[in-house]
Amino acid sequence: MNKTSFLFIIFFTLNFFAVVAEGASETSKPQSETEVVASLRDKALNSHLAFDILESLTTEVGARMAGTPQDALAVKWGVEKLKSLGFDKVWTEPVTFDTWIRKEEYAAIVSPYQHEIKITALGFSVPTPEQGIEAEVVHFKSIEDLSQSPKDSAKGKIVFISRKMERFRDGKGYGPAVKARSNGAVEAAKKGAVAVVIRSIGTDSHRLPHTGMMRYKEGVNKVPAAAMSNPDADLLTRIFARKKTVKMKLQINSHAGPKYTSQNVIGEMTGSEFTNEKVVIGGHLDSWDLGTGAVDDGAGVAITMAAAKIIGDSKQRPKRTIRVVLWANEEQGLVGAKAYAKRHKDDLENHITGAESDFGAGKIYAFASRVAEDNLAVVKKMAKLMKPLGIEYVDNEAGPGPDLIPMYELGMSVFSLRQDGTDYFDLHHTADDTLDKVKPENLAQNVAAYVVFAYLAANSEQKISR
Amino acid sequence: MNKTSFLFIIFFTLNFFAVVAEGASETSKPQSETEVVASLRDKALNSHLAFDILESLTTEVGARMAGTPQDALAVKWGVEKLKSLGFDKVWTEPVTFDTWIRKEEYAAIVSPYQHEIKITALGFSVPTPEQGIEAEVVHFKSIEDLSQSPKDSAKGKIVFISRKMERFRDGKGYGPAVKARSNGAVEAAKKGAVAVVIRSIGTDSHRLPHTGMMRYKEGVNKVPAAAMSNPDADLLTRIFARKKTVKMKLQINSHAGPKYTSQNVIGEMTGSEFTNEKVVIGGHLDSWDLGTGAVDDGAGVAITMAAAKIIGDSKQRPKRTIRVVLWANEEQGLVGAKAYAKRHKDDLENHITGAESDFGAGKIYAFASRVAEDNLAVVKKMAKLMKPLGIEYVDNEAGPGPDLIPMYELGMSVFSLRQDGTDYFDLHHTADDTLDKVKPENLAQNVAAYVVFAYLAANSEQKISR
Repeated sequence: MNKTSFLFIIFFTLNFFAVVAEGASETSKPQSETEVVASLRDKALNSHLAFDILESLTTEVGARMAGTPQDALAVKWGVEKLKSLGFDKVWTEPVTFDTWIRKEEYAAIVSPYQHEIKITALGFSVPTPEQGIEAEVVHFKSIEDLSQSPKDSAKGKIVFISRKMERFRDGKGYGPAVKARSNGAVEAAKKGAVAVVIRSIGTDSHRLPHTGMMRYKEGVNKVPAAAMSNPDADLLTRIFARKKTVKMKLQINSHAGPKYTSQNVIGEMTGSEFTNEKVVIGGHLDSWDLGTGAVDDGAGVAITMAAAKIIGDSKQRPKRTIRVVLWANEEQGLVGAKAYAKRHKDDLENHITGAESDFGAGKIYAFASRVAEDNLAVVKKMAKLMKPLGIEYVDNEAGPGPDLIPMYELGMSVFSLRQDGTDYFDLHHTADDTLDKVKPENLAQNVAAYVVFAYLAANSEQKISR
Repeated sequence: MNKTSFLFIIFFTLNFFAVVAEGASETSKPQSETEVVASLRDKALNSHLAFDILESLTTEVGARMAGTPQDALAVKWGVEKLKSLGFDKVWTEPVTFDTWIRKEEYAAIVSPYQHEIKITALGFSVPTPEQGIEAEVVHFKSIEDLSQSPKDSAKGKIVFISRKMERFRDGKGYGPAVKARSNGAVEAAKKGAVAVVIRSIGTDSHRLPHTGMMRYKEGVNKVPAAAMSNPDADLLTRIFARKKTVKMKLQINSHAGPKYTSQNVIGEMTGSEFTNEKVVIGGHLDSWDLGTGAVDDGAGVAITMAAAKIIGDSKQRPKRTIRVVLWANEEQGLVGAKAYAKRHKDDLENHITGAESDFGAGKIYAFASRVAEDNLAVVKKMAKLMKPLGIEYVDNEAGPGPDLIPMYELGMSVFSLRQDGTDYFDLHHTADDTLDKVKPENLAQNVAAYVVFAYLAANSEQKISR
């Protein structure tokens, strides 16, 4: 018998016993809550569903930047997928926002050496003049250095900020680094700059720049803003080390577009008892335009849809409803999340808790809660059932995933299921955010954790609150 | 005392003893050949020279495709660098060839789903019509499948070849895979295709396509040829798995250019006795245009220049001359190598042996020779002195590096110093071929191995031949 046949038989034998066991227990006597959840968790672990959903989204829709034709396609995909998975209710809620359209973008170092460099405009950057900008480049090692420099330190020049983002499992290198992206244009303009180019906010070494949002400020000149790939930033830094005058050409044709109305896509698996009360899980449906949004945030969409589907298929549904929200336009400012909070603020008491999956496709290694003290019994149950997944409980100090911030600010309780993000910022907001980066087994582990969390939260004796 | 200070002192102490040891031995009595070579090898191991040369080439010149203005810049750089390193003789020899100019290139899947995909034209591809080609795509799993398909199997269509290149330390996955790139256009045209797009000949998973040469054939229609990045090939393969009709848009404006004359750049460290006899080492100076040619083949240029410099600086020069050749236009058909062989064919007997470094910047793990049986004593010496570098002797069946093929075919003996190429085809011919991919310590190990090889070959009692 060859190895494949052997594994084949093992696989079917195991599945056979699993089916027999489930059938037997479900027909003979009702399982305990722990038995039900453990069984659903293990079903999730062995399920390919999340990967299949993600494969579908990245193949049939792909890049889906808010306000583009692919945004509408993603909404259609979301509705159809939730329906085809058998969600009890599926609907959409409108979300309106300003748009931004990416066009050609080009940059080159023109002096003292000639190099074409890989850049991408930052979200909502104004364009350069049509013929581009050619100017001397002035180098700052951080946005703090730029802010503290003299008033005219960048007058007529292109500001280059070279700060490197550091790699950590929990992504804590992002916060300090991303200020250069968010505020670089404002700080550069304050010093008289004509444009800003930053080292990408990312931890990789590939010629693929990272896009992302930037802001302008009322009363400060709006200058074009772009990020260059990290190897290009290394190159530029090496040129500056030669103490020569550096000139760059920068051409960005991206510009603001018209208002657009997208949709939050919502699906529910109705609870068995308190149908109005819900646990909210989800991910954001939009992505940046460069990649296919596999890890940001197709993974979150797939993980939470699959978790709700597996719970919904159970013969012992939890007491409360599982609501999956596929948030519109997270990337350009939590727009769908804010619209949702505005629309549902009077229903806050029925949003008993929630968690968003928006940190890629790495395994979950820890979880934290933010609930009232007297809800901690259910958290303990979660910890027990998540432990076999390699997940440790941290504390009751959880913050919300990005799209739950508005509801959290209104007072909703939240959970945080923490993924290993070691590689997340290699891919984040780049062309490289594609399906090949996702391991099906990691996705399945995430689904299993969301099953445990959502089922137990929805089935809690005591209604969870904060 | 902090760790840095401690290491600092250790470092200087070691260097002090090294200097004293060298000084003492060089002034008191002549070292044995083995002592000299071991000492030069260890000097090479601790030298940053090769990395500094590579840093200079990738920073001050960068991409240097044959026939571009950067080609001329690279020649200038090569001459100046050899002179500044103190080579005894530095000169150039003309190499004339047809050129090819890369312009805009764009591709998108337009049906059944819309995806922009990352492609790059293959070297010497003809352009598409200005407005591009939009056509149905027909999928072949290999060029063999395409060749064996019926006569009109691709009539009016774009051929897609999806074969994956396999990863091996010695790069043996390249040969079987690269046929799709070299011959894909001819085989596709024979079946009536209007263009060919292949999965990149590379082992990475990044949105960076691999370029490289392709060929047309007299009497077969010339169709445009491009490679797509591997994640894009995965995507297209997933779409084909849905058994839908796939359409693609392809736009390539690249085209043939005028004749150009570049130069082989040559530098010599003169031998102490038989100055006309030489050991030839080198790498090719040209690169593809997408990256900065750090691993292909800036590394080879840097390794061999540094090795010759370290030998040249020795107070006990070897009997014969070390000739470094920085070959022109390897990428588009060993053009510099052929010109060299034509020019020097009557001096074949003085080309005692040689080795080219053209497989990236990984450590050398093995070496092989191709010499007359009665030269094996010197090979044994090399093996002994390379062993501490982690290098094993293989056999006397070595083949030549690409640029030594023409001289080898005339009868020259050759050596092959085999680098670990596990990651080489992640970078090969892509935009990602940049300095950050090179580890200085690996480069130094290569230099040490070339020092051992070149010194011992040049100092051999018996003149090496094949």
